[in-house]
Amino acid sequence: MANKQMDRKDFLKSSAVAGVALTMAPYILTGQDDRKANIAFIGVGSKGTSNLRVCLSRGDVVVTHICDIDKEAAAGAAKLVTDAGQKKPKVYTRGDEDYLRMLKQGTGEIEGVIISTPWLWHTPMTVATMKAGMYAAPEVWGATTVDECWELVNVSEETGMSCMMLENHCYDRDSMTILRMVREGLFGELIHTQCGYQHDLRTGYKFKPGVEFGPGSEGEARWRTKHSITRNGDLYPTHGLGPIANCLDDNRGNRMVSLTSTATKSRGLNSYIVEHPGENRMSTNTKFALGDIVTSVVKTAREETIVISHDTNLPRPYTDMYRVQGTKGIWMEDGYQIYIEGMSPEEHQWEPFEPYMEKFEHPLWQKHGGEGSHGGADPLKNGAFVECVKRKIPTPIDVYDTAAWIVVSPLSEQSIAQGSAPVEFPDFTRGKWKTNQPIFGLIGEY
Amino acid sequence: MANKQMDRKDFLKSSAVAGVALTMAPYILTGQDDRKANIAFIGVGSKGTSNLRVCLSRGDVVVTHICDIDKEAAAGAAKLVTDAGQKKPKVYTRGDEDYLRMLKQGTGEIEGVIISTPWLWHTPMTVATMKAGMYAAPEVWGATTVDECWELVNVSEETGMSCMMLENHCYDRDSMTILRMVREGLFGELIHTQCGYQHDLRTGYKFKPGVEFGPGSEGEARWRTKHSITRNGDLYPTHGLGPIANCLDDNRGNRMVSLTSTATKSRGLNSYIVEHPGENRMSTNTKFALGDIVTSVVKTAREETIVISHDTNLPRPYTDMYRVQGTKGIWMEDGYQIYIEGMSPEEHQWEPFEPYMEKFEHPLWQKHGGEGSHGGADPLKNGAFVECVKRKIPTPIDVYDTAAWIVVSPLSEQSIAQGSAPVEFPDFTRGKWKTNQPIFGLIGEY
Repeated sequence: MANKQMDRKDFLKSSAVAGVALTMAPYILTGQDDRKANIAFIGVGSKGTSNLRVCLSRGDVVVTHICDIDKEAAAGAAKLVTDAGQKKPKVYTRGDEDYLRMLKQGTGEIEGVIISTPWLWHTPMTVATMKAGMYAAPEVWGATTVDECWELVNVSEETGMSCMMLENHCYDRDSMTILRMVREGLFGELIHTQCGYQHDLRTGYKFKPGVEFGPGSEGEARWRTKHSITRNGDLYPTHGLGPIANCLDDNRGNRMVSLTSTATKSRGLNSYIVEHPGENRMSTNTKFALGDIVTSVVKTAREETIVISHDTNLPRPYTDMYRVQGTKGIWMEDGYQIYIEGMSPEEHQWEPFEPYMEKFEHPLWQKHGGEGSHGGADPLKNGAFVECVKRKIPTPIDVYDTAAWIVVSPLSEQSIAQGSAPVEFPDFTRGKWKTNQPIFGLIGEY
Repeated sequence: MANKQMDRKDFLKSSAVAGVALTMAPYILTGQDDRKANIAFIGVGSKGTSNLRVCLSRGDVVVTHICDIDKEAAAGAAKLVTDAGQKKPKVYTRGDEDYLRMLKQGTGEIEGVIISTPWLWHTPMTVATMKAGMYAAPEVWGATTVDECWELVNVSEETGMSCMMLENHCYDRDSMTILRMVREGLFGELIHTQCGYQHDLRTGYKFKPGVEFGPGSEGEARWRTKHSITRNGDLYPTHGLGPIANCLDDNRGNRMVSLTSTATKSRGLNSYIVEHPGENRMSTNTKFALGDIVTSVVKTAREETIVISHDTNLPRPYTDMYRVQGTKGIWMEDGYQIYIEGMSPEEHQWEPFEPYMEKFEHPLWQKHGGEGSHGGADPLKNGAFVECVKRKIPTPIDVYDTAAWIVVSPLSEQSIAQGSAPVEFPDFTRGKWKTNQPIFGLIGEY
């Protein structure tokens, strides 16, 4: 085992030095492995604690370090660890920069870090993590600048460390079923897709009333609402885009080339404040930059299109707006319906998608489906990261995926600021997308 | 009655001369009227014959002239007229330009002309009709040039004659229900909409196999397929756009300002030819310019967005992709579902749209719904035209609507040719959109 692991480390190092993709053929290395992974957590609020619980339930994660500016949250997380029968983790709570002290003191011990903090901290924390020789798993976010995406890529390549955004929607049962169906050719050649983050966040993530932000508010409201005041773009693209990018072989034979974005007026958040006096801490005069609906249209190198919607400020049921369409058929999340030419019983008629969910369930879901919270997606995303940390192999969502997906935010802001002018995607792979092979969801193990 | 009618003619004439909108307040003139309308038909293929049958069934239409280059079709149409107990109409079949002879000979007798011909003929025939002092009702199409849209507007203003595109989808039961709900404020302030023409046309309009065009083919295939070989844009935008434009007060307090369009690769038609040898007349090497899916994003003066999809070359069930979303709720055609804040029983949960169709049925449908073919939309669209011809009042879909909706085709071609660059809509109303009032579907009579 030791030799095998050394081989993998050498492979990673030489790959990085030679500029070879980190993402090449890791899945031949899938033998049983009894070792454990030492994982640290930066941010143990609602999302971080959820990730912690999932990791503790696995049996192969040793939680060595915990960092949070909220002492109470950190103490609660540490108690979860000891309650699980593990040694008390080292706890870091001395303010915004204390994660650096943790990374320094944990060097050589921590192998991977799960980062569940406000968006603006994701890049500096991920970068510092990789520089400390650890795998990084930042939670879902959208970038603020194109430069930070390049920084993630450059540091990952320099250090040989993986950066895996924990995009749980890539692991959803329907997303993975569709991915399998795409790969098995049921849709023919892919032509068009759509997706979105359509989630009424006016009342907060937990449907607690009140549009608010800053000290005194709760949970994500402490920092998330603020982005809507100053930014107009698709602030949160990856829940929709991640699964679609996997279907389209993004960065692996294909890449996103350009986009246009168009924003509506901003009415939803302000209306909510005005109509719910006393339920929030914000002035009825608050001006929001964020258009209620931002529509982006992406063109890929293979000339498919992706329509992405960001829709968080209006009353609506949650949906990811998925649509996958090719020369042989089409799947729509709205209506949960599908049509496959020559397979669907009635020509030109939808049929329910549920039977396909059974028939084409992804091997990963066949093996692990239904375990844990979030319909099993959270255990799968955390599991993939932990398995790769243990094996010291590249993660199935890598730094190129992370960068390409989160860069939609600043690119959409640019396009909107320029009256919906088309904006080019950087090629974070520096040409390697032409030869890189798909790595996500190829096997049933992780 | 004669005086009243004269007043209306004078009103129209003076409006045109003074540059006042043709579309002002016609609906005060809705008294019973026993007179009949003399209507001519140019084009009596499948669609034209359908319009003819609807008009003959009304009892207030005298079909005086029929023109078609197909002598058999013209004779069949003439027989329908005599079978209905009317005098034999004059028939014109001497080639492409014979409609001009008809308009000349019919001057003073023909009051309105229904034009159901290939797209490229719509503008010259409509222009000639208005110049002959008759109301024009061209069937649904997309323009080829921006100039032809201006020509329609200029000639309508010069002659005082109305141009009403027969956009049947504006008269669909669900479209009109939604329009009523929008006007009654159920969706709050409108923010975002979507629509499309998503219709698998590979097999021809009647699901007769074969991608083909030109002499020897049948029906629309004789001319429609050819557009797909030379043009890349949204070739047929108005089925989706018409009803949405009505909801958004397009040209009446609002207008479409700019759009971006993005096309996918072209695969569907060619794949169909290759996979169905012997069922069509086209070479397997035929190259199509038309991307399989064209997505346009329109921004309006009130800062709403409209996503328009053109999707005619892939296997799929038919849908118009409607979505109407405001500060209070959202309706989706896909899934036929709705959510209205404070009205829907479960927060953040869709409910079926059907009960709303009963509760908010438009007065026009309450009075005339279910009469005739196409779910009642065809009788309503033809009826509106005939009623306005009889009353000599402006049509509820006017030349500004027609021009603004059909101009999407050349604008989308421009945007695609320029890499999805934003393209401005002309203001066909020359500023009158700011003060013009809505005219469509205001009453239950027509």
